[in-house]
Amino acid sequence: MSQSQAHDDVHPPMAAVQDAVARALAEDLLPLGDLTASLVPIGVRARAAFVARQEGVLAGRLCAQEALRQVDPTIRAEWAFDDGQWFPAGATLAEVGGTLRSILTAERTALNLLGHLSGIATLTRRFADAVAPARVRDTRKTTPGLRALEKAAVRAGGGVNHRASLSDGILVKDNHLGGLSITVAVQRAAERWPGRVVEVECDTIEQVREALAAGAGMVLLDNMSPDEVAVAVQEVGGRILVEVSGGVTLDTAPLYAKTGADFVSVGAITHSAPVLDIGLDLEGP
Amino acid sequence: MSQSQAHDDVHPPMAAVQDAVARALAEDLLPLGDLTASLVPIGVRARAAFVARQEGVLAGRLCAQEALRQVDPTIRAEWAFDDGQWFPAGATLAEVGGTLRSILTAERTALNLLGHLSGIATLTRRFADAVAPARVRDTRKTTPGLRALEKAAVRAGGGVNHRASLSDGILVKDNHLGGLSITVAVQRAAERWPGRVVEVECDTIEQVREALAAGAGMVLLDNMSPDEVAVAVQEVGGRILVEVSGGVTLDTAPLYAKTGADFVSVGAITHSAPVLDIGLDLEGP
Amino acid sequence: MSQSQAHDDVHPPMAAVQDAVARALAEDLLPLGDLTASLVPIGVRARAAFVARQEGVLAGRLCAQEALRQVDPTIRAEWAFDDGQWFPAGATLAEVGGTLRSILTAERTALNLLGHLSGIATLTRRFADAVAPARVRDTRKTTPGLRALEKAAVRAGGGVNHRASLSDGILVKDNHLGGLSITVAVQRAAERWPGRVVEVECDTIEQVREALAAGAGMVLLDNMSPDEVAVAVQEVGGRILVEVSGGVTLDTAPLYAKTGADFVSVGAITHSAPVLDIGLDLEGP
Amino acid sequence: MSQSQAHDDVHPPMAAVQDAVARALAEDLLPLGDLTASLVPIGVRARAAFVARQEGVLAGRLCAQEALRQVDPTIRAEWAFDDGQWFPAGATLAEVGGTLRSILTAERTALNLLGHLSGIATLTRRFADAVAPARVRDTRKTTPGLRALEKAAVRAGGGVNHRASLSDGILVKDNHLGGLSITVAVQRAAERWPGRVVEVECDTIEQVREALAAGAGMVLLDNMSPDEVAVAVQEVGGRILVEVSGGVTLDTAPLYAKTGADFVSVGAITHSAPVLDIGLDLEGP
Amino acid sequence: MSQSQAHDDVHPPMAAVQDAVARALAEDLLPLGDLTASLVPIGVRARAAFVARQEGVLAGRLCAQEALRQVDPTIRAEWAFDDGQWFPAGATLAEVGGTLRSILTAERTALNLLGHLSGIATLTRRFADAVAPARVRDTRKTTPGLRALEKAAVRAGGGVNHRASLSDGILVKDNHLGGLSITVAVQRAAERWPGRVVEVECDTIEQVREALAAGAGMVLLDNMSPDEVAVAVQEVGGRILVEVSGGVTLDTAPLYAKTGADFVSVGAITHSAPVLDIGLDLEGP
Amino acid sequence: MSQSQAHDDVHPPMAAVQDAVARALAEDLLPLGDLTASLVPIGVRARAAFVARQEGVLAGRLCAQEALRQVDPTIRAEWAFDDGQWFPAGATLAEVGGTLRSILTAERTALNLLGHLSGIATLTRRFADAVAPARVRDTRKTTPGLRALEKAAVRAGGGVNHRASLSDGILVKDNHLGGLSITVAVQRAAERWPGRVVEVECDTIEQVREALAAGAGMVLLDNMSPDEVAVAVQEVGGRILVEVSGGVTLDTAPLYAKTGADFVSVGAITHSAPVLDIGLDLEGP
Repeated sequence: MSQSQAHDDVHPPMAAVQDAVARALAEDLLPLGDLTASLVPIGVRARAAFVARQEGVLAGRLCAQEALRQVDPTIRAEWAFDDGQWFPAGATLAEVGGTLRSILTAERTALNLLGHLSGIATLTRRFADAVAPARVRDTRKTTPGLRALEKAAVRAGGGVNHRASLSDGILVKDNHLGGLSITVAVQRAAERWPGRVVEVECDTIEQVREALAAGAGMVLLDNMSPDEVAVAVQEVGGRILVEVSGGVTLDTAPLYAKTGADFVSVGAITHSAPVLDIGLDLEGP
Repeated sequence: MSQSQAHDDVHPPMAAVQDAVARALAEDLLPLGDLTASLVPIGVRARAAFVARQEGVLAGRLCAQEALRQVDPTIRAEWAFDDGQWFPAGATLAEVGGTLRSILTAERTALNLLGHLSGIATLTRRFADAVAPARVRDTRKTTPGLRALEKAAVRAGGGVNHRASLSDGILVKDNHLGGLSITVAVQRAAERWPGRVVEVECDTIEQVREALAAGAGMVLLDNMSPDEVAVAVQEVGGRILVEVSGGVTLDTAPLYAKTGADFVSVGAITHSAPVLDIGLDLEGP
Repeated sequence: MSQSQAHDDVHPPMAAVQDAVARALAEDLLPLGDLTASLVPIGVRARAAFVARQEGVLAGRLCAQEALRQVDPTIRAEWAFDDGQWFPAGATLAEVGGTLRSILTAERTALNLLGHLSGIATLTRRFADAVAPARVRDTRKTTPGLRALEKAAVRAGGGVNHRASLSDGILVKDNHLGGLSITVAVQRAAERWPGRVVEVECDTIEQVREALAAGAGMVLLDNMSPDEVAVAVQEVGGRILVEVSGGVTLDTAPLYAKTGADFVSVGAITHSAPVLDIGLDLEGP
Repeated sequence: MSQSQAHDDVHPPMAAVQDAVARALAEDLLPLGDLTASLVPIGVRARAAFVARQEGVLAGRLCAQEALRQVDPTIRAEWAFDDGQWFPAGATLAEVGGTLRSILTAERTALNLLGHLSGIATLTRRFADAVAPARVRDTRKTTPGLRALEKAAVRAGGGVNHRASLSDGILVKDNHLGGLSITVAVQRAAERWPGRVVEVECDTIEQVREALAAGAGMVLLDNMSPDEVAVAVQEVGGRILVEVSGGVTLDTAPLYAKTGADFVSVGAITHSAPVLDIGLDLEGP
Repeated sequence: MSQSQAHDDVHPPMAAVQDAVARALAEDLLPLGDLTASLVPIGVRARAAFVARQEGVLAGRLCAQEALRQVDPTIRAEWAFDDGQWFPAGATLAEVGGTLRSILTAERTALNLLGHLSGIATLTRRFADAVAPARVRDTRKTTPGLRALEKAAVRAGGGVNHRASLSDGILVKDNHLGGLSITVAVQRAAERWPGRVVEVECDTIEQVREALAAGAGMVLLDNMSPDEVAVAVQEVGGRILVEVSGGVTLDTAPLYAKTGADFVSVGAITHSAPVLDIGLDLEGP
Repeated sequence: MSQSQAHDDVHPPMAAVQDAVARALAEDLLPLGDLTASLVPIGVRARAAFVARQEGVLAGRLCAQEALRQVDPTIRAEWAFDDGQWFPAGATLAEVGGTLRSILTAERTALNLLGHLSGIATLTRRFADAVAPARVRDTRKTTPGLRALEKAAVRAGGGVNHRASLSDGILVKDNHLGGLSITVAVQRAAERWPGRVVEVECDTIEQVREALAAGAGMVLLDNMSPDEVAVAVQEVGGRILVEVSGGVTLDTAPLYAKTGADFVSVGAITHSAPVLDIGLDLEGP
């Protein structure tokens, strides 16, 4: 896996971190608390480590840290890696110290977030490597309630964020064309929502031409073969950005990498990334 | 894929549905609304269909329905399948009618929930088939904030819910044994939290014996080979329930199915289920 | 009152504490703040004490502490007792120091929680003493919104928690039998919700026999006389747990204590416990 | 018990009702739903009744109705009594019809609210009768999170609401006098918070005189004997309102009733009212 | 005032409407409800009208309607105008019918939202007229908590929304240049957040040239005189969009209108718009 | 502008501050964070100042401080002024130090709150000066969601708070008289909500007499000329408080000041106060 450094902004806003952790802990601890941890004597202390069972790219450090803090502010953690960094299988990601009860109570919530988000970052990195020199972009196909965290994990993996919501970007898709033409859509968007790039999903080279003529700022070539993409890229001639989408896999990605497209957007990096296997190893008192 | 019917309670509580949908829509629509849909003339009406691109087991119908309703109470939907039912690739899951704007605005939120939860239900069903006559159980390795929905999707897939949280079940794991013995743990649990089954994670046959002697109600055989599990099952002799866990895959599942264990618990059904591909096809005005 | 020690887990999860206190303070302070305290000069400092006007068992220490903290993080409090401990009338429970304004503003919220929860712990302790060697269990007859705190207060009083919700325990009651038999209910529960004890409410010895035969894990003998309970206990013969319910009072509790039942569940400990009288005495500047 | 009619505003604001019910149902149903009700076949319908096991005064009708509605909007209920009305033991308060599952799921939440609030209304009514022609007032000694509902229950019982919070009324208590005199307090209150009645807690006749001279609008005679109260009432001579407080019980209330005081405030009506016993009787399909 | 029609999307997302109204009503009604309305007999019905005391542009219709609905779903309202429409002084905006109590309780919340948002729409319209053919844009200088509603009111007034938040648009301001140059900022933005227009605030013509050369998509000319703006517009030569900001008033706006700039952004339309005077007139029973 | 000192309670409850800031930051930062600040290198530090561009009265210091803290707890701020204090144009209100990124991210939210609330305090001060020796009171015409903050800003400006909500004060207005007479309203209020001042809006001297006779505690003279007010004040003769309302402006205020009325209430101080211009000046690293 490549070690290319992600840019600086690999962390989500803290408000999103705090909220997600609070909800996850409420799910796991209310109303009676941790029944099993209550069997452990109060005084017992422990040292433990978050250990990677697989290689990957870290994401979710702030979430895991916040889970520890919300369960017990006296837990201490030293992190050896930050979001966006690649680690080998077997790596110790963080050393943790505190009472055994508190560590056990926080364990699963911390790991669920760490594993889920690192899974996304790691799959993103694989796609980033596969589509280079094009870049991988995410989609709105995120887990409901976790978009801020998942979009940050994509950045940690070296991907680029597409629009964050229907409210912060314009993408005219085929289904919109049931109500208006590409030309009208682009013109109306420029008039009503100026200062925003208008992207148009195109299935054919004719649509690409119409989008270009209408003044679109980006085209999304959907479900085209690599050859068709190459033709479209040539048609666009560098005047606007070109994005490719539609079931691109790690196998087919390299074919699109050579087409000259700027971006390949992949829903799978957020909706189907398997968890990255990270565990908590108890090391002693 | 088997068509075995899930039991009646395949839906999550409506409060969980409403909350998850409201959060997802807020993520996607605030503060400006759907910029692109705003380009479509207000009056245009549409008929559309949720169509399965793959075969699978449905979960999340109430979520998708609620997403439509929260966006626009006048959207109508007719569902051809309910949660827990198997459908073939190409199946029309629901017919939808309303304004084009509203349908486009609700589309992604509805599909994200439907695809994510049906992905879980479908993977659960595959494991359920693979481990029969044992039964597949979920874990607490769920997506933060979505536990109620994902546990329901597991039931829709024919799986059985393990404890829902640290507060509603007792499972003594190896990490707890850093602070107390199996025997003490089981006795203390029976005293402090009577009326709850005490499950003990065991790595060895000796631990199984200790758990049995202490009065555990279930053992979780972790990371044992099928042969080791078979020995442990014989040791238990039907006196208590036996569960198997530890990286069981669809490939290795059949080996465990024959061991006589009652349950195989699989984290992957919630933490690594790929999305089930469901799309929205516009059918006309 | 007995001084028998409660077990370690007498405190509610901190998330429940913080939420309950925040709501109580919002009720009492928004939007204008404490009008009367605003009349007191800002600089005036005070020492004060939470003083018990009656003997009792403490519960709610974390709540009172959190109320002080949310009103003013600079208030200091030294606690002489912790939840679960018996104190005599006149005991000083805590010494408090800070500005007079802040102490007065926090006083009522702290006392409301302390008095309400200590009232529950104290009444629970009386029942615990009265039913020994059986043990007292709570019910779901708790104050809406305060279940986590009240269940912890029951533990502080030496009681045992029954299920925390409809979602975390199975109790087949007479009203359920309008839709299915005891036998079907127990079998279906074992199949759908394995790993959970199935408890069956029984009004007659015949029902006890049916529950036993069906494989119930516990019976709840409802509204039986002590003699009837004794007969049922003999019938059960120690195979499963036996609980008694139905208007048991401190007067009638000793009669049930001798029946051999394992538990006596009492709704009154949460729904009708009078407040324990605790006040705030100002001691000087 | 007297049948004197409460005034029109015996119901809490609907926002408070909806919020309290939503919290109570979340406590009771998340995340898995009602495990036991799930055993009942989906189609079974039932008729049931909320039946009073004791006489009393109703409060909480809107809460119970809202609990039914949130669980299942198709449940129908016909109420024979409204908040503020007295009913005899055995009275049917409401007839309910719907699916057996839904009724069982909503039962406890509805009853918890109905019983708690009717308990408050009923005890209030007893005090109202005992202190007449004086009137009974509540205090801020309410259950955290339920103040709006409990204050409405007091009105349903024929009581009068004191201030709802520290933010909406001024009451200078002995503890405030650690920082300023009665005279200064009253003057400052009149200047800073004009348009609000200033009430002063008095332990002695001298304090009553000081409060009167300072321009207080009401005095609260705390822990005075009936004779002392009578003297103070004469001193006040009808110029301002007189309230009595301090451990008044149903036994001692009549002694204060004859003193000429306008109000007797009783914390017990909210902090120590036992639940009113109301049950749900299943009547058939 | 011009009557130019606003475009279709003059309404905020319903989730924002419902949330703002619920908060406003909670502020105004909890915990005791409307004390004064409680004096009015329950049965009294009324007809009333929202009447404009000044001419203006409507915004907030959905908010006012939602306030009525949340207070009492049986209130009926007929609206004569919709958001974005100009109305003369004295116009009846809506006819309302329901119980007098409910109408009085909802009145102030409905009017506060209607007046505040219509005030914004109306001031926006005045600026829109004054800067034409340039267009008026809003800023992030909105009232905390009301951004979605206020941005919609700007659209209703014929204005254009600038970015909705720091998360959905890039604007390099002078203060950012304490940490990096315009050239670096624009290049880095294009790399990290592709698909978004990069706008650069410029105080000098040299900065405009640097922004153009770096590839900015828009320049914001801050605190320039109309003459300076005209020079900058010429420099830009239509290659990218030009926005003007910095204390533009209705008096100075026409001077900027003639400069050829595309947009004039005005913080005052959201942060200093006086309320539009709308009242509720009671018309009879 | 006068420098008369506001009284001690010029700050809102911290719970209201924290909530308003959290909502404002969520609006501005979710889900992707501050895109533009992300372009600034992480390590760059800065010193900056909140500087007043106009003279005025400060309000919102706690809000601005909390915005800095929620964005980054390591930002340090030294305040030279507190709420209620007058400052000249050009005054440095606070010195701020931290990372450039964090300061830029928090800037707008802090300024929006500071400018909005100081605008209210400043306009209130102008009215306070203009109506002296009468005093200025606010109304319920506040921005939805910000009432606690705005009422505190009024106090900071030297104004007096009217009732905070429909729940904490009684004001019989002309619209109520559609359902009952002044006499009945006052008597009923005294009976149902004793311990609260009853204020009656009067349009005529006859209504003033009726209110006085009925026992009102305050009259609100609405839309009367200064001469009419003077007559009414004489009629009242100091027996109860007199308030004046109805479109009083800074121009007409002095005319009312001489009438002998106790209060002049002005909706404009909350609903139409222009923002006070405060900016953030970067001072160096």
